[in-house]
Amino acid sequence: MEKFEINILGCGSALPTTKHNLSSQVVSFRDKLHMIDCGEGSQLQFRKLKLNFNRLTNIFISHLHGDHCFGLPGFISTLGLLGRTSDLHIFAQPDAEKVFRPLLDYFCKGLAYSVIFHSFDPFKHQLIYEDRGLQVFTIPLKHRVPTAGFLFVEKPKALHINRESCDFFQVPISQYGNIKAGNDFITSNGEVIPNHRLTNKPQTPRRYAYCSDTAYEEKIVPIIQGVDLLYHEATFLHSDLVRAKETFHSSSIEAASIAKKAEVGQLILGHFSARYPNEKVLLEEAQSVFPNTILSSETKSFVL
Amino acid sequence: MEKFEINILGCGSALPTTKHNLSSQVVSFRDKLHMIDCGEGSQLQFRKLKLNFNRLTNIFISHLHGDHCFGLPGFISTLGLLGRTSDLHIFAQPDAEKVFRPLLDYFCKGLAYSVIFHSFDPFKHQLIYEDRGLQVFTIPLKHRVPTAGFLFVEKPKALHINRESCDFFQVPISQYGNIKAGNDFITSNGEVIPNHRLTNKPQTPRRYAYCSDTAYEEKIVPIIQGVDLLYHEATFLHSDLVRAKETFHSSSIEAASIAKKAEVGQLILGHFSARYPNEKVLLEEAQSVFPNTILSSETKSFVL
Repeated sequence: MEKFEINILGCGSALPTTKHNLSSQVVSFRDKLHMIDCGEGSQLQFRKLKLNFNRLTNIFISHLHGDHCFGLPGFISTLGLLGRTSDLHIFAQPDAEKVFRPLLDYFCKGLAYSVIFHSFDPFKHQLIYEDRGLQVFTIPLKHRVPTAGFLFVEKPKALHINRESCDFFQVPISQYGNIKAGNDFITSNGEVIPNHRLTNKPQTPRRYAYCSDTAYEEKIVPIIQGVDLLYHEATFLHSDLVRAKETFHSSSIEAASIAKKAEVGQLILGHFSARYPNEKVLLEEAQSVFPNTILSSETKSFVL
Repeated sequence: MEKFEINILGCGSALPTTKHNLSSQVVSFRDKLHMIDCGEGSQLQFRKLKLNFNRLTNIFISHLHGDHCFGLPGFISTLGLLGRTSDLHIFAQPDAEKVFRPLLDYFCKGLAYSVIFHSFDPFKHQLIYEDRGLQVFTIPLKHRVPTAGFLFVEKPKALHINRESCDFFQVPISQYGNIKAGNDFITSNGEVIPNHRLTNKPQTPRRYAYCSDTAYEEKIVPIIQGVDLLYHEATFLHSDLVRAKETFHSSSIEAASIAKKAEVGQLILGHFSARYPNEKVLLEEAQSVFPNTILSSETKSFVL
């Protein structure tokens, strides 16, 4: 099975601490790395995890709060120093280019590669990136500023030929393309062999959803329905719900409720506030609603 | 003796590594903290060293290369989250405000404190900051972009009264002010008691010089003559002098030659390139020219 892995570079909120770095993750799919958010210090975390800078293709920025994007100028500058020549694509809201381009023009003159901004509408659920094996969709979230989460979807694979069965019905190899495309087979004496007898179903496409920062937002449930893995922010304990609502963040109970409604495979909590010295309390609270919940932590990785 | 201490937050060059953070130091003098340079990750180093964010008054930026100032937006944002209300002063070249103000306007709206930029001419040696006990002067350096080092000078203190001697010559306490100001004393029978017999000299004012980034530049010698402590960049070994010259950096031999010519008390090497896995080679090279040389390292502090 092809690699589909999530590496947590930072899962703290607002203030970096000795325990948690600022928001950043890397989705490793096939030969490419896709970064989600890039808080200050992300380049160092990337290095600590021994991720390959050359494999990084895209950076997706959820929203324009400093703790999710202040690592960009340093990261871009470092890629230049490391000799990068291939384009770097940044997917973000239109303002991102407006605020960062002047800084890059001043500090990163003469880069041997291009930084290409692709802007998206954070209020729409839409496809914003696609390659041979992967699609990335936005997930409109509910925060103090326009914010979008990201849904990473593996593209469906072709059906697998059941060799034994095809041999039995004497399917010529020239017909394998048709069979893989889902067609039935008609034998020389006119008998129709239904496709499902000639093929094995491919593995169900894997899906990962990143939802941070956001208040409780049921509208995302249909978008993330049944994903294998959901990273959902849980900045506060439910006892601090008033503060969560004020700041458009979620409690861990709320994160777990979304996971339950969306019937996801597993929930990872993140975007931890420094006010809780031990996140176990957040975990226990969430598990009371959605048992298959775990805590994110720096340098942890999750394989789908 | 009043506290005069240098804390190294980062002494790496260009690329942050797991070993070295990007350029940043804190000069602690009396009740105030003065930061020099603010590379990415400086706020976290500041926190790790348990320095008091409230005591930070000024940030001095030597030059506008990312590894010396990309930590500013995050630092400023964090001070806001920590509830700062007192002004923060940033001393830098005029371009600094031009490039960072738009970013602060976008990301740090509604700060409860003011960020005040004070611009200086990096080509001039001049006083740029002064308070009750300290003066800070620029040191014009020689780099690819306009760059200034900083000279921190303790203000001279008043003479100390020699109580025993004053009692012997029956100097009335009302005259102590005059004596402290350096005047002689005339006894009731007209005898002149020279000031030096009535006073003890105060401790010589302490001085610290920060010179990074810079090529070998003898013009700085008179400015830093006899400082107690000199931090001088030593990005390269002398065998890589060609590369040092190309990039307007110094070799450790060059750093040591400056220290020797300026007859400084002690030399600290810094701004280490990631190309040398062990900086001991830089140290040994420098010590062959100027024996009282040490290596800087993160979280090290130097008391003057």
